Amino acid sequence: MKVLELGEFGLIGLLREMVCERRNEQAVSWKRLIIGIGDDTAVWQGDNSVTLATTDSLVQGVHFTLDTATWQELGWKALAISLSDIAAMGGIPLYALLSLGLPGDVEVEDVTNLYRGMLELAKHFDVAIAGGNVARSPVVSLGSTVLGSAAGGNVMARSAARVGDKIAVTGYLGAAAAGLKMFREQLTFSRHSGASFRQAFLRPFPRIVDGQIMASLGVKAAMDISDGLLADLGHICQASRVGARINVDKLPVHPDVAGSFGEESLELALSGGEDYELLFTASAEVIDQLKARVSCPVTVIGEITSDETCRIVMVNGQGRPFTPAKKGWQHFASG
Amino acid sequence: MKVLELGEFGLIGLLREMVCERRNEQAVSWKRLIIGIGDDTAVWQGDNSVTLATTDSLVQGVHFTLDTATWQELGWKALAISLSDIAAMGGIPLYALLSLGLPGDVEVEDVTNLYRGMLELAKHFDVAIAGGNVARSPVVSLGSTVLGSAAGGNVMARSAARVGDKIAVTGYLGAAAAGLKMFREQLTFSRHSGASFRQAFLRPFPRIVDGQIMASLGVKAAMDISDGLLADLGHICQASRVGARINVDKLPVHPDVAGSFGEESLELALSGGEDYELLFTASAEVIDQLKARVSCPVTVIGEITSDETCRIVMVNGQGRPFTPAKKGWQHFASG
Repeated sequence: MKVLELGEFGLIGLLREMVCERRNEQAVSWKRLIIGIGDDTAVWQGDNSVTLATTDSLVQGVHFTLDTATWQELGWKALAISLSDIAAMGGIPLYALLSLGLPGDVEVEDVTNLYRGMLELAKHFDVAIAGGNVARSPVVSLGSTVLGSAAGGNVMARSAARVGDKIAVTGYLGAAAAGLKMFREQLTFSRHSGASFRQAFLRPFPRIVDGQIMASLGVKAAMDISDGLLADLGHICQASRVGARINVDKLPVHPDVAGSFGEESLELALSGGEDYELLFTASAEVIDQLKARVSCPVTVIGEITSDETCRIVMVNGQGRPFTPAKKGWQHFASG
Repeated sequence: MKVLELGEFGLIGLLREMVCERRNEQAVSWKRLIIGIGDDTAVWQGDNSVTLATTDSLVQGVHFTLDTATWQELGWKALAISLSDIAAMGGIPLYALLSLGLPGDVEVEDVTNLYRGMLELAKHFDVAIAGGNVARSPVVSLGSTVLGSAAGGNVMARSAARVGDKIAVTGYLGAAAAGLKMFREQLTFSRHSGASFRQAFLRPFPRIVDGQIMASLGVKAAMDISDGLLADLGHICQASRVGARINVDKLPVHPDVAGSFGEESLELALSGGEDYELLFTASAEVIDQLKARVSCPVTVIGEITSDETCRIVMVNGQGRPFTPAKKGWQHFASG
């Protein structure tokens, strides 16, 4: 079977099983590992504190093209996607390593601009760029690894959603997917909307502070939205062995997306991905406390249900089954 | 200027300067950083212990081809190159994250074989595979990040060589370069030599234990030989602001290389690279103590000299200047 047929998540599941089967439970490293393969970030117990480690990558032609992104934006985004994984655990990012794959004919100035973008974001959270690696590569590839810690050892995980929890998201959804679509299909929008989509896709701002507040308030289950709301909620449901019911009329569709994409905007918000907002589950009381503490919007979009088959049910504001228009959604149950 | 014109080390130097200029000396992360960009491994002070972090990558077509390496060998090597960086600091490896870039038509079985090779090596040192990342990529790329600690906080660094130190290496040199040459030029050797070159190039065994013993005995300056003895000794000299004098007749050229490559074997040992042996400097007494403690050969090949221009001088057994035959060596002074 080809990797493409098995899919990213099938492959990760298979590799996780292999690694788990071969773990040495007597070794200090394995004994101290709290969260391994399959969550946003690896977590292990240090001497006094909990260590977080995550790695992510951007590949030219797959995740970006050099004619639509500036090098500075790429540097920002390469670091942002790993910081967002730390945010999803409620962690404190501390150190980053950047692994660059570069064709020989790239301009040195482009690489320094890449670093400018990365350093600009690193500064927001006092992340120290501690090292990395440079290798020749036929296409530009940017790998970022971020190490951090968790205050009081509280980390959020995909596997901690419980039946009855409310499901909520930070910020607005769909603008990053709108940005990708704008670049791919060479769409034009008002200057304001175009800039907003570009910003969402290329300069996502990781929800580090909001994630830390969530963890401190006792939120147990969270992840960042990278694959799209439905796919990522699916990951939480699978990891927690629960189902979910969401009201699509409650979705915080980005206003510029709603204004520019009409009916399609719901699809972008549900399945678009790369918003790097936080998706989490908690009691209504905790969510109310959170709303009072964070500066970003927090929207309840549904609740966790008891369902061993881990289905996500979508309804509209009248409680009627919502049937998505797109075929790509068929693997998610509706009704 | 193009990246190719500036070169890997020029680029790293430039990026290090940028990062250092923008560091925030008030931030906890920066305050605790002991070794940043420019050494094999980043080192920072944790609450009770010292943390080590390193990242490295292998790219298809640049570092390997799929017709000459098995997936199992690639998995081993991808982890080995990062473990070797931990070995160069005398550290204890604990956790690894693997970042895979894969074309969609790769067979799933190939990826599980890759993991088999990696897990086989991880088991030797009780390294826990804690996470990673899978992304689509036009070519296979393998990024490994290894986290570890240092017993008693003793780490070796490139910058700690002192005038009068002896220069020594573990094991034998040139066999990995012989392996690369064998694959590239489709050379044939005796079954024994061919297997030996293949093993050296594709399954290097990181000198983790030997590195730890070195650090415990007080060796201050070390690095692993990845770019070639001369280039890597150059890194130590530059970082320590010293020169070096080496006796080429003392070089521990791998016996199979000497047997198969004749005069060329010295070039492979001096400049071939990827041997992943440890190159270090210490007093003669410490080196004698080390020889009694480690199971691999340890060979003194020269000494550190006072030279602000950081030249490496090569002589033969009679003390006469040794002039390398290859033009590629012209940037290293001789005589």
